[in-house]
Amino acid sequence: MDYIFSDKISSLKPSAIREILKATSDPGVIPLAAGNPSAEAFPVEEVKKITEEILKEDPILALQYGVTEGYNPLRELISSYMKEKYNIGKESDSIIITAGAQQIMDLTTKVLLNEGDTVICEAPSFIGSLNCFRSYNAKLCGVEVEADGINVEKLEEALKTEKNVKFIYTIPNFQNPSGVTMSLEKRKKVYELAKKYNVLILEDNPYGDLRVSGEHLPSIKSFDEDGIVIYGGSFSKILSPGIRVGYVIANEKLIAKMTVGKQATDVHTPMLTQLIVYKWMKEYDFEKHIEKICGIYKSKLELMCDNIDKHFGDKVTYVRPEGGLFVWCRLRDDIDMLSFCAEAVKNKVAVVPGTAFMMNADDKTQCFRMNFSTPSDEKIVKGIEILGNILSKY
Amino acid sequence: MDYIFSDKISSLKPSAIREILKATSDPGVIPLAAGNPSAEAFPVEEVKKITEEILKEDPILALQYGVTEGYNPLRELISSYMKEKYNIGKESDSIIITAGAQQIMDLTTKVLLNEGDTVICEAPSFIGSLNCFRSYNAKLCGVEVEADGINVEKLEEALKTEKNVKFIYTIPNFQNPSGVTMSLEKRKKVYELAKKYNVLILEDNPYGDLRVSGEHLPSIKSFDEDGIVIYGGSFSKILSPGIRVGYVIANEKLIAKMTVGKQATDVHTPMLTQLIVYKWMKEYDFEKHIEKICGIYKSKLELMCDNIDKHFGDKVTYVRPEGGLFVWCRLRDDIDMLSFCAEAVKNKVAVVPGTAFMMNADDKTQCFRMNFSTPSDEKIVKGIEILGNILSKY
Repeated sequence: MDYIFSDKISSLKPSAIREILKATSDPGVIPLAAGNPSAEAFPVEEVKKITEEILKEDPILALQYGVTEGYNPLRELISSYMKEKYNIGKESDSIIITAGAQQIMDLTTKVLLNEGDTVICEAPSFIGSLNCFRSYNAKLCGVEVEADGINVEKLEEALKTEKNVKFIYTIPNFQNPSGVTMSLEKRKKVYELAKKYNVLILEDNPYGDLRVSGEHLPSIKSFDEDGIVIYGGSFSKILSPGIRVGYVIANEKLIAKMTVGKQATDVHTPMLTQLIVYKWMKEYDFEKHIEKICGIYKSKLELMCDNIDKHFGDKVTYVRPEGGLFVWCRLRDDIDMLSFCAEAVKNKVAVVPGTAFMMNADDKTQCFRMNFSTPSDEKIVKGIEILGNILSKY
Repeated sequence: MDYIFSDKISSLKPSAIREILKATSDPGVIPLAAGNPSAEAFPVEEVKKITEEILKEDPILALQYGVTEGYNPLRELISSYMKEKYNIGKESDSIIITAGAQQIMDLTTKVLLNEGDTVICEAPSFIGSLNCFRSYNAKLCGVEVEADGINVEKLEEALKTEKNVKFIYTIPNFQNPSGVTMSLEKRKKVYELAKKYNVLILEDNPYGDLRVSGEHLPSIKSFDEDGIVIYGGSFSKILSPGIRVGYVIANEKLIAKMTVGKQATDVHTPMLTQLIVYKWMKEYDFEKHIEKICGIYKSKLELMCDNIDKHFGDKVTYVRPEGGLFVWCRLRDDIDMLSFCAEAVKNKVAVVPGTAFMMNADDKTQCFRMNFSTPSDEKIVKGIEILGNILSKY
């Protein structure tokens, strides 16, 4: 049979990163392309103990159907924690436990976008989110990311000129892929602009806890008096990505529609994995675990950056990130970015060409992304050295 | 802020069943409205042991990111089992491990339907699937279900007259809500018609293993020589619904597009729950467990039907199902179905009005659905007696 696919899915390609990772599944390749948490960052003993207790104390709760919004005690626990610690969430807000943070993008787009409507994104931005928006036939409008976050003049220009803008998508902390953290001033300005132009903000914060230097900045959601901000959080980087648990906090009217959407999508997030997160937050000093992870990543980030400084010379510029998982490097203008990335793979070092994160595959960029959480320290040193050798030939 | 929702989600309402269940969460209400597996049907001890082993043997595998298609050894195990046992799957087919069977409807619709395209459904049909199709702005065309399955003359008529039909949605075994099993002759005819009119078939088989009488019938997918049939299976009714693990087997071109769709939706199904299913299938006699479940449900089904025969008299007609979880009752024409269902809830017995399963909420039906897996035996007897008393007043 000749299959005819929907318009929205026809042009969608598998994530470029995923394809690179497949091509480099060879264990001899140094994996600077991935975004996996470090194996040492998992609280293995706690998860073992918690899971054993869950299946001993109330196995039917873990195995039976749950409600779409998520396990209520977990919803309440996250809500009160986020309110107390970060001033996120108001009386009029509610919460859904999602299938990882990726589902937050899916549900937001499902409830807000008609085909052809516009999403304003930071350029570059996370490919998984961009592909999600594309899978709803969204028009993507990219606004340049600077060292202190999105260019707010260009953002206002886009809000003025683009048609049917439904939301602004932003990762304010240690943005993927740029590593940039948005300044407080810009956070306030983005909020003001969204309010002025009557569009929502999707604030995606998977890396917020992974700060290794500098001061914590309040989330955009923390100044949300108007029900404008949809806030997405995740346990992928602090507990486990494989359990696929995230959460979305937004005005209850938005949450009600997202719940109907989730019901039609996957009914509910698995009970067992929700219960693991619940007991981990409730019974363990998870903040101490996050501190431990930040220690690991601080050392890896510094190792990568120090080696970049040592080996890349004037061929690359970059902003040293204050956290997250990625370093975003800009090649000198005379170096062809795609052939550099191809050369890297040939030399058994995988990095991601920056084009993967652009609104259109043919948008020009001199950048590539490297990850420091997946490789061992030895591989970070070796990988950067190899890339430095390649660069020295330019 | 005044929210403006997408066209596709604006008209979508929470599942009527879910609302009934919320209204009747009072433990004093006899739950004949649900569709939960019986608590006795869970292999609790096995899951405990398996989970402990997984987290002992390879915790990082269970906690780290996985690939979108699913855990490869599980994909291979299900593929070979379904091929050997049911002749399902060919060389040109592939498989994805999904977030329950609900996600199969979501991915199928995502890759095949443009807004306004038509899905032909059995009328009545499973509300969760209908709501999924609605969430893509599908046009639903209902074709009547008879005692031996969909009316194939009316199906051909619909295929001839409806525009942009993309697939036929069917639950051939112990259909939800009608309890009907499609005859072999009709299975072949549905396949022929799909081929003739160049549309796909989405064969949803969550209850297939729950046969308590009669002979197993081959699935439509088992005669698929043309890559027409998308087959959906689930572990919800035989292992656990709360772990949300299903699978879809279809031509590899369809699976490739569904994989891209899943990647944009939730990245992958949780590793821990996939590993539980894997070890359960691989290391345990799960067919014996299914036999045990069928024994439990056979006794509950017979108990419910015998009591219907005893208490409902000529006020209700029904077809005794050969398996599944539901009994579908048709009220005598002079009885108002909706007021009967309201009267039932007033008397603390929850049943689902048949309108929930129709293409349009104002489609007429004299039917209501009852479930026998959730309530205890005592509650089945008591519930049917109460309904009988209500009926005796008509």
